This record gives sequence, C-alpha cells and structure tokens, in this order.
Amino acid sequence: MEEQLMDTINVALIGQGFMGRSHSNAWGQVAKFFKPPIKPIMHTSFGQPGVDPDPAGFAANWGWKNVSTDWESVVKNPEIGLVDIVTPNYMHAPVAKAAIAAGKHVACEKPIAGTLADAREMVEAAKKANVKTFVWFNYRRCPAVALAHLLVKQGKLGEIRHVRAAYLQDWADENVPLVWRFDKNLAGSGAHGDLNAHIVDMTRFVTGLEITEIAGAIAETFIKKRRLPSAGSTGAIVSGGAGKEEWGDVTVDDTVLFLARFSNGAVASFEAARQATGNQNRNMFEINGTKGALKFDFERMNELLFYDATLPRAVQGWTNIMVTHAPDHPYIANWWPDAHIIGYEHGFVNQAYDILRVIAGQEPVVPIPDFEDAYQTQRVLEAALISARERRPVKLEEVY
Amino acid sequence: MEEQLMDTINVALIGQGFMGRSHSNAWGQVAKFFKPPIKPIMHTSFGQPGVDPDPAGFAANWGWKNVSTDWESVVKNPEIGLVDIVTPNYMHAPVAKAAIAAGKHVACEKPIAGTLADAREMVEAAKKANVKTFVWFNYRRCPAVALAHLLVKQGKLGEIRHVRAAYLQDWADENVPLVWRFDKNLAGSGAHGDLNAHIVDMTRFVTGLEITEIAGAIAETFIKKRRLPSAGSTGAIVSGGAGKEEWGDVTVDDTVLFLARFSNGAVASFEAARQATGNQNRNMFEINGTKGALKFDFERMNELLFYDATLPRAVQGWTNIMVTHAPDHPYIANWWPDAHIIGYEHGFVNQAYDILRVIAGQEPVVPIPDFEDAYQTQRVLEAALISARERRPVKLEEVY
Amino acid sequence: MEEQLMDTINVALIGQGFMGRSHSNAWGQVAKFFKPPIKPIMHTSFGQPGVDPDPAGFAANWGWKNVSTDWESVVKNPEIGLVDIVTPNYMHAPVAKAAIAAGKHVACEKPIAGTLADAREMVEAAKKANVKTFVWFNYRRCPAVALAHLLVKQGKLGEIRHVRAAYLQDWADENVPLVWRFDKNLAGSGAHGDLNAHIVDMTRFVTGLEITEIAGAIAETFIKKRRLPSAGSTGAIVSGGAGKEEWGDVTVDDTVLFLARFSNGAVASFEAARQATGNQNRNMFEINGTKGALKFDFERMNELLFYDATLPRAVQGWTNIMVTHAPDHPYIANWWPDAHIIGYEHGFVNQAYDILRVIAGQEPVVPIPDFEDAYQTQRVLEAALISARERRPVKLEEVY
Amino acid sequence: MEEQLMDTINVALIGQGFMGRSHSNAWGQVAKFFKPPIKPIMHTSFGQPGVDPDPAGFAANWGWKNVSTDWESVVKNPEIGLVDIVTPNYMHAPVAKAAIAAGKHVACEKPIAGTLADAREMVEAAKKANVKTFVWFNYRRCPAVALAHLLVKQGKLGEIRHVRAAYLQDWADENVPLVWRFDKNLAGSGAHGDLNAHIVDMTRFVTGLEITEIAGAIAETFIKKRRLPSAGSTGAIVSGGAGKEEWGDVTVDDTVLFLARFSNGAVASFEAARQATGNQNRNMFEINGTKGALKFDFERMNELLFYDATLPRAVQGWTNIMVTHAPDHPYIANWWPDAHIIGYEHGFVNQAYDILRVIAGQEPVVPIPDFEDAYQTQRVLEAALISARERRPVKLEEVY
Repeated sequence: MEEQLMDTINVALIGQGFMGRSHSNAWGQVAKFFKPPIKPIMHTSFGQPGVDPDPAGFAANWGWKNVSTDWESVVKNPEIGLVDIVTPNYMHAPVAKAAIAAGKHVACEKPIAGTLADAREMVEAAKKANVKTFVWFNYRRCPAVALAHLLVKQGKLGEIRHVRAAYLQDWADENVPLVWRFDKNLAGSGAHGDLNAHIVDMTRFVTGLEITEIAGAIAETFIKKRRLPSAGSTGAIVSGGAGKEEWGDVTVDDTVLFLARFSNGAVASFEAARQATGNQNRNMFEINGTKGALKFDFERMNELLFYDATLPRAVQGWTNIMVTHAPDHPYIANWWPDAHIIGYEHGFVNQAYDILRVIAGQEPVVPIPDFEDAYQTQRVLEAALISARERRPVKLEEVY
Repeated sequence: MEEQLMDTINVALIGQGFMGRSHSNAWGQVAKFFKPPIKPIMHTSFGQPGVDPDPAGFAANWGWKNVSTDWESVVKNPEIGLVDIVTPNYMHAPVAKAAIAAGKHVACEKPIAGTLADAREMVEAAKKANVKTFVWFNYRRCPAVALAHLLVKQGKLGEIRHVRAAYLQDWADENVPLVWRFDKNLAGSGAHGDLNAHIVDMTRFVTGLEITEIAGAIAETFIKKRRLPSAGSTGAIVSGGAGKEEWGDVTVDDTVLFLARFSNGAVASFEAARQATGNQNRNMFEINGTKGALKFDFERMNELLFYDATLPRAVQGWTNIMVTHAPDHPYIANWWPDAHIIGYEHGFVNQAYDILRVIAGQEPVVPIPDFEDAYQTQRVLEAALISARERRPVKLEEVY
Repeated sequence: MEEQLMDTINVALIGQGFMGRSHSNAWGQVAKFFKPPIKPIMHTSFGQPGVDPDPAGFAANWGWKNVSTDWESVVKNPEIGLVDIVTPNYMHAPVAKAAIAAGKHVACEKPIAGTLADAREMVEAAKKANVKTFVWFNYRRCPAVALAHLLVKQGKLGEIRHVRAAYLQDWADENVPLVWRFDKNLAGSGAHGDLNAHIVDMTRFVTGLEITEIAGAIAETFIKKRRLPSAGSTGAIVSGGAGKEEWGDVTVDDTVLFLARFSNGAVASFEAARQATGNQNRNMFEINGTKGALKFDFERMNELLFYDATLPRAVQGWTNIMVTHAPDHPYIANWWPDAHIIGYEHGFVNQAYDILRVIAGQEPVVPIPDFEDAYQTQRVLEAALISARERRPVKLEEVY
Repeated sequence: MEEQLMDTINVALIGQGFMGRSHSNAWGQVAKFFKPPIKPIMHTSFGQPGVDPDPAGFAANWGWKNVSTDWESVVKNPEIGLVDIVTPNYMHAPVAKAAIAAGKHVACEKPIAGTLADAREMVEAAKKANVKTFVWFNYRRCPAVALAHLLVKQGKLGEIRHVRAAYLQDWADENVPLVWRFDKNLAGSGAHGDLNAHIVDMTRFVTGLEITEIAGAIAETFIKKRRLPSAGSTGAIVSGGAGKEEWGDVTVDDTVLFLARFSNGAVASFEAARQATGNQNRNMFEINGTKGALKFDFERMNELLFYDATLPRAVQGWTNIMVTHAPDHPYIANWWPDAHIIGYEHGFVNQAYDILRVIAGQEPVVPIPDFEDAYQTQRVLEAALISARERRPVKLEEVY
C-alpha cells in the first residue's frame, strides 16, 4: 500500500509567530490533500522563552510531537531531517548555518536574512554542504502566480517591456507599538524586506529575468517614534497593544519605492508600503510584453488577468482567469472543485508539497527558490537601499 | 464636393423632455462625427404648451430652425421628411399615425406605444404606407451591445440556454412627486414599459431569438401614493420637486419581474425596478450558450464581457473587451481614439446615423427596429402584465 | 490549563465523497484555529462499499481513528456523540432518524433530505428527541455572508424590497456522465436541491424574512441523456469519466428559476443552473432596501458589497468591504491577518466551531440552521417545483 | 431674455488635428448643455496647408464661420477674443505669444510648450499682458477627478503620504509610422510630455501639493526606428499607415518613469508608456492619506474609488462612487440623469464652460490651470528628464 511504502522526514520548526502558525498548518495539511513522495512528521517545535508566550501550548495545538526551547539542540538532533526557520530575520543565519552544519535540509522564511552578509554566508554554507535549501516565497505557489510563470515561459507575453509591482499594506498607523518588525536589529529592514522581498521574488520568478540595475529609490519612515509594546508580545502584526507610555525609535523604513531595469532592458517600478490606506494586503504585479500582459493582485489570489494581444482585436481584452480548474491550473487539483476558492494558507501547503518533492529528488510543480536564488533577491533589495541612501543609481554587479 | 452632393432631410421633433434633449443632440452631432448619406436639417421643434416650459427657448438652444406648438400642422408640413416622436407614451400613436398618413418617415421613442392596441394600429398604418419607421431602442447602438449581437451572429455562443436581464434604477423613492411616469394614462406602464422594454429589445436583438412564453410574473407598486408635482413640470425624471401637499395615486408598477422562454427553449428572467437602491442605471444582461457567454452592464457601457469556452481551458475566463477599437468595433471609428470612452448620448447619435442610412436605402451598421419589430417587444411586455395580473403562464401567441 | 479541562465529543462521519473531505478537514482544523468549548474527536469514518473506493484509506488520510462500512452500527455506538451525515441525499433521512433514535446530535449536509416527506420526518424525530440538529448550509459562515446578516439585523438596509439570487455553475456539459447527482432517486433533485437550496437558505438568513409564495417557476433539463459512468465512481462532481457507451436518462433538473414573495412583500428571483457557461461557482445574492443594499458573490467570498444610502449623496456608492478585519468581522480573528484571504473550506471549519458552541450550550456566532429551519428552506424548494410542474403560483402554506 | 443679454466672444481655433476635433466639439456643445455667462462664437478655424488635409472641410464640418491658413493674421484679427491653440507642441509658444501680444485671451493645449524655455516665455508674456490664459488639462474636469479634488480639499484624506500615478497606452507598436509625436522637434517629448504631463497636473490638482524633488527616473525608447508616414498625414494617433519603406529615427521617449517627493514629504511614482500592452488609455492615480484614499482610472471615468478610513471599521472598504448625481457631483447636472454616463469629450465641454466663466470674471467650478500653473507641471517634467539623463536626483528649485 502506498502509505506504508512512503518515506517520512522529521521536521523541526524554529519559531512560533505568525509564520509559525502558517507553516505548522502547512505541514499538517500537506499529506491530507497531496500525495507527497515523502511524508512529513511534525517532530519538534521550538519556541523562544520570553518571546513566544506558550511554547508547549503552541506545539500541542498544532500537533508537534515535541517542544523545545533550545534551538541549537533541535537542529543537531539526529532524528531531524528538515529544519524550518520562521524566526525574526536576524536569527535566520545562525539557525540555518547550524542546521546545515548538522547536515539538515533547511527551509527558511523570507527574506533569506536580515543582512546581505548573513545571506551570503548562508549561501556559502549551503554550497559546501550536501543539503537542500528552500526559501518560503509562498506567493510563487498561488496557482495564479504559478500560472503567470508558466504563461510567460510559453512565450505568451513575447518580449517583456514593463513591470510594475507593489505590495501595499495599511496596518502600521500611529497606534501600532514598536514591535520587532520596526527594529532594524531584529528585522533587518521594514516594508522593504517584508514586502518588496516578495514582489522582487515574484517578478523575477514570473518574468524569468534578473534585475541588473536600480535607477533610483526612496526610503521613508513616516512614523519615527512608536510606543513600546507590552512585554512578552511575539511581535507579530499587532493592531493596538496596551503599551505603557514609553516610546522608542523606529529604525526601519515604512515605505521603499525604486525603479529598476531587467536584464533584457525592461523597465520596472517597485513599491512597498505599510501606511497605504485602503490596501490591506495588495501584493500585485503587472507585466506588459509585446504579445500580451498579465496582472495579479493577491487580494483576489484565485484570479489572474491575462491580455492576449494575439487574439483577433475585436475580442481582445483582459481575461479574468479563475485559476481553479484541474488539471489545467497548477496545484488546484488537490483542493476543491472549480471556483471553490482557496486562500492565503494554501500557498504554504503547496510549497510544503514541493519541498517534499525536491527532497525526494523530484521536480517541483514550479521552480522553488533555494538560498542562492533568494540571495539574488536580497542583492536587489540591498541595491535599492544603497540607491536610496546614496541617492544614485546602483548596478547589481556592485552588490554581493 | 461630397457635402454639396449630399441629400438632406428635414426633421421635426415632437416633444421637448429628457428625450427631446437626447434626440436634439443626436441630430446636431451626427453629421459632425459621421458622414451620413443624407444630412439631417433640424427643421422644427414642437413643444407642448402647459407641459414644455419654454418651447422657443428649447428650439433656440438646440438649433432647431423653427418652433411650433401645433404638432398636427408640423407633421403635415410638406417640408418635413422625418417626424421624430419623443412625447409621453400615450401620444406616440396619434402622432405616428398622422405622420404616416402624411407620408413621412417616423422615428418613435420606445416603448412604441402606451397600449398594445395603439402599437398594433401603428404597425398597421406603417404597413400600408410607403414610409420607413424606426423605434429608438438606443442601447442597441452602444458599441458593446452591437458587438454582442455580432458575436452571437458569428456563432461564438453556440446554442443559447440562459438569458438573465435586469434594468434597475433607484430614483423613485418616496420623495419623488407624481410625475407623468407614474400615471398609467400618460405612460402606459411604469418600470415595465420604461425599462423592461429596453431589456426585452436588447435580448431579442443580441440573441436573435423570440420570446414565446411568459412562465410567471410579478408586478408591484411599492409606493402607492405620491405628492402631486408643482404645475408646469415636464414630468421628466425629477428628484424632489417642491409640490403642494396634495397626493394622488400611482397607477403604474414600480417593479415587474418575469420568467420567460425563448423559441429555442432557452430560459430567461427579466426584472425592471425603480427602487433598487444602489443601481442608478444598471441596464444589464447575461447570456450563456454552449460555446460562450456574454455580460453587459450599461453603467460600464464601453465594456463587453465575453467568455470564450472554446479557448484552451487554462486561459478561459471573462474577457473584458473595451469596445473602443476602430475599425474592429462598431460605430467607434467615428468617435475618439481607443479607450477615450463614449457615453449615453452617443447611442442616439449612432442611431441617428443608421436611421439616415436606412432612409437612404443603405444597411444600418446593425439591425434597427421598425414598428413591426418593436411591436414584438410590446407583445412580450403585454404578456408579462397579463401573467402578473392573471397569475398564470401566458403564451405569446395569445397576445396580439 | 484550558486544554485539559476541555470537554470532548466523538464524531462519526457518514459518507466519504466531496463533502466527506470538506467535513473531515473541518473537524481536523477547528480546534487548531478556534478554541471551541468542546473538542471534537474524529472517531469513526463510514464508507460505503461499492460507492466509496477506499474507506480505510480515506479514514487514514484524514485522521479518523476508526473506519466502518456499517453505518447502522456506527450511529448506535455509545461512544459517538455527534453523527455528521454527508451521504447522497436519499440517505439523509434514514441515517438521521437512526442517529436521533440513538440519542445523538446530528449534523446533516444540505439539502436536509431528498424529499419533503423525508425532511418532515426528520424534523418530527428531532422534535421528540433531546438532541441538537444542524444542517450544513456552509455559506452562512462565510464572513461576508455573516456580516450581511448582521448589517441587515442592525437595520442598515431599512425595509427590504428586492432580492435577487442565483447560484450558477457550468460543469455539467454533455461530457459529464450520469453520476448520482443526475438521478432523482439518489439526489432528490438537480440544480434545485444542490444550488437553489443554498441561496434560499442564504437569503432567508440574511434578510431575516420568510418566503410566502412562489409566483412562477421554470424547471428544465437541457441534457436529457448521459453516458453511464464507470463502475465504482463516487459520483462526486466528475469532469469527464471514461464510461462505456451506455446511456441513461437524466431524471433531475439542470436549471430551476422561480419568482417569489417574502413575508413583507419584497419581490425575489432565484435561479440555479449547471450549464451557465462562464460561471463556475457563482453563488450570489443582491438585496435592495430602503436605506441600503448588499451584493455578494462567492467567487469573491472575502468581499461584501454594501451601498449605504444614508451617507452624504456625494460619497454614496458600492463599498467593497474586504471582510477580513478582526475583530470587526465575524470568524476572521481565528484565521490570518487582514486581507490574507480565506477560502471555501473555511466556512465548514467556522460551522464546526459553531456546532460545538451550540452543543456546549453557547450561542453560535450567527444563527445556524437546525432541521426545523432547513425544513422551511425545503418547503420553498418544493413549492417552486410544484409551481414549475403545475404552471401556477403556489403559496407556501399549501406545502408542508 | 437671458439669451439676448448674453455676451459673446469670438473664438479662433489654431490647429485641426485630434485636439482640433475635441475643441471644436466643445465650443459647439457648451452653450447647449450649460448656460455660460459668455456665449462662444466659433469664428475662425486655422488649418495648416500640407499638414491639415482639408482646412475648409474641417471648418465647415464643425461649424466654424471662417477658415484661414494664416495663423498670424488670425490671432491679430480684432474680432477675435480668444485664441485656442491645438497645434503640435512646438508651435504653442509662437502662437501664444503672438496672441497675447495682440491682447487676446489664450487657451492652449497641454503640455504648455515643447520646451521649458518656451513655456517660460509664454508665462512671462502672459504676466505682462492683461489677458487670461488657460491650459487644457481636460482630465481635471472629469467629474470624478473634480470630486477627488474637492474631497481632498475637505480634508477627507488627512495628510497625504503616497501618490502613484500612471498613464499607460499601447498604441505605439512597431507598425506605427514616424508621426509627429515621435519627433522631438515637433513634439518636445514623447510619452512624457503627452501622458506624464496629465498625471503630474492631475496629482498636483487633486492633492493641492507641489512636487519638490525627482528622486530618480528612467527614460526609454523601445522602438528606435520607424517607417516614415505617407505624406500629408496629420500625425494624429494613427494605427498603421501605408508608408513607403523609408525609415527614420524616433527622437522622443516611449516610456518615462520617475519617483518624486511632494512638498509635505509624500512619496510618489509616475509612469507614462506607449507600449504597455493591454492598456489603451489607462490614466490613473492612487492617493493614500492618513484618513482616506482615492483611486481613479480614466477608462472608467465616471467612477471614483474612495476609501473612508473614518467610517466604522466593519463597513470600511473602497466605495465606487458613480460620479453622476446632480447636484452633488460637479458638472453633471448639465448632462444626463444618474448613471447615464458621459465620455471623453465631456471634459472638454466642461472646460470650455469654465474658461467662459473665468473670462466673465466668475470662479470656475474647480480651479483651471493658467500658463503659470502649467509651467509648474512643465518644470516637473523637465526635472524628470534631467534626472533620467544625468542619473541623479533633481530638486525642482534647480529647474526654471
């Protein structure tokens, strides 16, 4: 019987915040909806004392068999096959390097690291080891984004000329306290690392092109001081917070905009924002090519807009593809019938499936970024920050 | 030179209400944007004393050369070639019959008449005379609706199975006084004749099919009494109105819904409403066939939604066609560049052009209803009212 | 500790089709995302030999502790506290009645039964027993639909005048074989029981009004013969199917349309369709009242359109509410941050949560239908079928 | 009688291209739909021999009383009160300066001039003269854009933080010949002057803020050579063109993107493009403030999206305001009833009305740009070009 012959892999999850929930759910759901070649066992959940409020409760809730408050021992545990990192960004590098040193496969949340130097070290460590690495750019695995990738690959857009991408949120008004996401030491950067990371990855993924230059950039922090949060908060996206009236400096950006060039000469604009009122999670791109164009907005994640300029002109227009038809659309055969739409968490389950495929030596449904790939995204982010700070264009080749 | 060789026709406009403005504009604009085979001369404007507040002012404003308050003499005037009727519905028949008797071509606002008997007489009169007749179902000449007609004709929808149409407005709340549109003697019917008339005509036009049965219907008057309007009001759509506090009965419907069958067995629903809060002028249809489907909503009149079920499934979806590309889309070559959108009044100008083509013996861009054609629409409306009143299905063959 | 004090209830799931998956997922997810007052234990999964292809595999996949192919013994098992029925419709009544007789709480998929007589017997049985009953009208628990209910309850719509609802799908073309959904003996009805059931329930739920009369109806079967499916198929929504070339009669409707009146005089139209090309799962309603209006379409289930006619006129319009903000929107606090949208399955998890609340003696977040409530929906469906068959209006009081 | 007492002004139109049509229509329609304090008389139409194919035909078609092929004598004609300039951009300055010297009011198409130096001279000339000047940034007078301006002025957006604007077209593919719009000497610039001019003006107008710095820019010409057009073409937007096979250099940009700062620190991005496949005339902006946000897209010009962040959170969302309600929405009372939408040309008619009001000493409905105001827009455009060319940020104070 298939189930009995299935290999298994023990997974350790390092972190228990918002992403801890998303990943726990993914590891719990993947084998129910998919038939992965290797079955994940939810072995150990690490929670950080003083940060994560109830490590054992979290582990029990999500079905992790063990709980630990010592990540170093977890990543060395010989039973563990895959270390999944969902900590604040500054911890990505130490945990990942330790896990690689212990011979584990590593799946790391994005951005790959809080600093480019950290990211480079992670890439170097991975290169020397015989392990697989993955970065959770989960939006690649929205069926609509995966379809966009496939359509471009089939040549449906012709030569790409324009890319415009934005990831706009509005949660970070004056009432939000100084959680870890506003602290450069913990988060690395603000909207830029949190949001631009996604759209840089997505547009690289969908276009199949690399960004070669930042032509100009703006980084701004609109709200420069915030109340300190109450102790023990995990620092995930918090709306409000009681907070004693002590204040601290915001040391990351609220918004970063930049203009870029892709390797083929295509021009591009990117914008990340946390106070773009009216946009709660508008993770969007538009791509125009000589033969067609695409639009995506995560707030309607089951839909992809495609303009096919090769159709007879009388019936040309933006086609709103409901990307929910099996088997013609990626991933969706494992979920529900047509137009019984899926949500945010499904991208993570889809990615868990592809991670298991890759570990088993199979091809993922669509390409999945490893540390090397995520490092390219990180270089773009770094170049944009340099451009904003030094007020000049920056070529990617300067940044490594 | 083309202009000098161009024939001309003298037009008389009978009525000066809301439609009087639309038609005056159409006759004034048509030769500026189109090259009609016959040039219309705006000869005489008739205004009704006691109803139209300033007949001479209206005529001067719109560029009519003459003004009259005696329609009977106007329609007999040997200089007049085309009589255009935009009075309240009860006057359509007497004016049209007199004009026909005088050998004039006649263009009449919709619905063709206030009663089916009147309509039948108009048809009979037209049959015996050697004149051309037209009914201003202006929405046929929105480029998007005309394109819908053409796509169906090309077989893009396959066999049609479903039609759903609605024309929803919300202007008629309790504050609107008892204008002519609420008086059965003047208007014939309420939302039904005003709004369902359009969607019955449009769906007949687009599908190319006839309605053969009404399966059931509801007619309702939500607001049964209204304040009398102040004297002299033209009775066009008026929001508010000072009104002395005298009240009268509303004798027409506020809303009429009905279910119907088309000749090929397709099922259909229709709804007209004047208190459908949130819908100011939502004149819409949806048509589903075995090979494709269409959606139209006048509030976005430059757009037609087309679902092509013969495309590869991966890229199927609703294509939002911006119907503004010349020469691929009807009428639009005479207006502005791509996506420099047109509005409500343009349907009338387009129709004025087609009327002139037909009078000149040319084909219209898309078929234009004559009295006979509009009478079929009127039969459907009548059958729906019988169905609502007698609480039973009604076959069209019963109604003539 | 909260978890230890939590009561538990053993759940038995009767059926393993499409709904079997949805419910299994719901029971597995509910305690991870919510803190229900009673924790569900996934005790036993019943699969029907010859219908469900792999009862044990299904049970193992979803985490059911036991598997059975004898539902009668399952519903009598003294360990079971809640029987959840997801069989084809004809089995709802016998299983429910047996479960009630055994003193179990019962949650039944919709429609409550294949026939009105069956439904009535279920209601009677439930009345005499001291058990709680539930029907899985899952769409009530989309946050947007729940919000619609709450807004109406707060009086935001004023007096309701118009309801238009449709549930349109397009999966059932000529290539789909004769699965159980096309067999009256198994399914009770076609699109009507499958789809109209949902929109009748939703509009009753949102408006808080009862339907009192069917004014007219059409029922049609466009495709009257279909190939027999290959043996052993579960009969869930299947696109294609190898099928030997034997054909059978479709004994249910493909589409049912009807017009209705609500108790307050509001007029309504309903339509269910399985060949409405271009609509994969368009479960929608529009409601217009004197003070405001609502629109919902399940294909964008995270959004509710609200027109507030009490705002200053200059800023009136359709507001697209992204119903993903905690704590202002129902259910969503237990899922993801703002605009990290949820999908189809979440309605089921939300309902599982409310079922557990009700069993524990708590109020559900929004009202949940019991057998008595679902029976009212069934009466409406029956009245519509009578109206279609007998070609006449039908008052609800005739049908019981 | 009002009409008899009405003052008149003789208008001369210099140019007969695409804008010649738009303006001719505006002057012809304005007094029919509005009651301007001064009535425009369409006195003389200038057509350029060798460029405009039929000066007399154009004049006759649109109702100009006289035709001339000598603009210098026209602008000096003592009968003329207002000179309206719709020539290619390089002629704006000489015609405007001559008209001002002759004491005429001047209305000039945008951009104000082909070069900044020209624009400055025009401003200087106007300052010294006792004439009124106007620039046809027609989109300000779309009711939706005017409403946006008014809402911001009322404080509905709070402090503005983000502006993103784009004007995307796709007409300029490889098949379009080398018309005047591709020639720097005639057009001044490409997409930048044609399209960015509009969105710079619109965002200045709506926000009430000035741009103080360009942070970075990209200018690109994707298609560097084009076939020469056939002789005598007017050079308006031409799709195709027979063209002998001779080729010339495109000397203007196809696309210009730039990042900017407004005076209050708000960040902004702008993009103009002529090969943005799928976008025919997408002239759009988004503005996010601390209390609310706005979105506009000309392709749906009758609609304004407004997010009111001061409403109760449960009903916050993007409200799609159909800007067609009189008297609450600007300009629309003079057109048609609610949601009987207007189109592209109406912005011009609305502007003609406001020009006549200003000449009569009245306030325009919303502010109308004079040469000084349009010169500020021109400085922004110039700064962006410098930024693109010199690859550095440019402060506006550098550019004058």
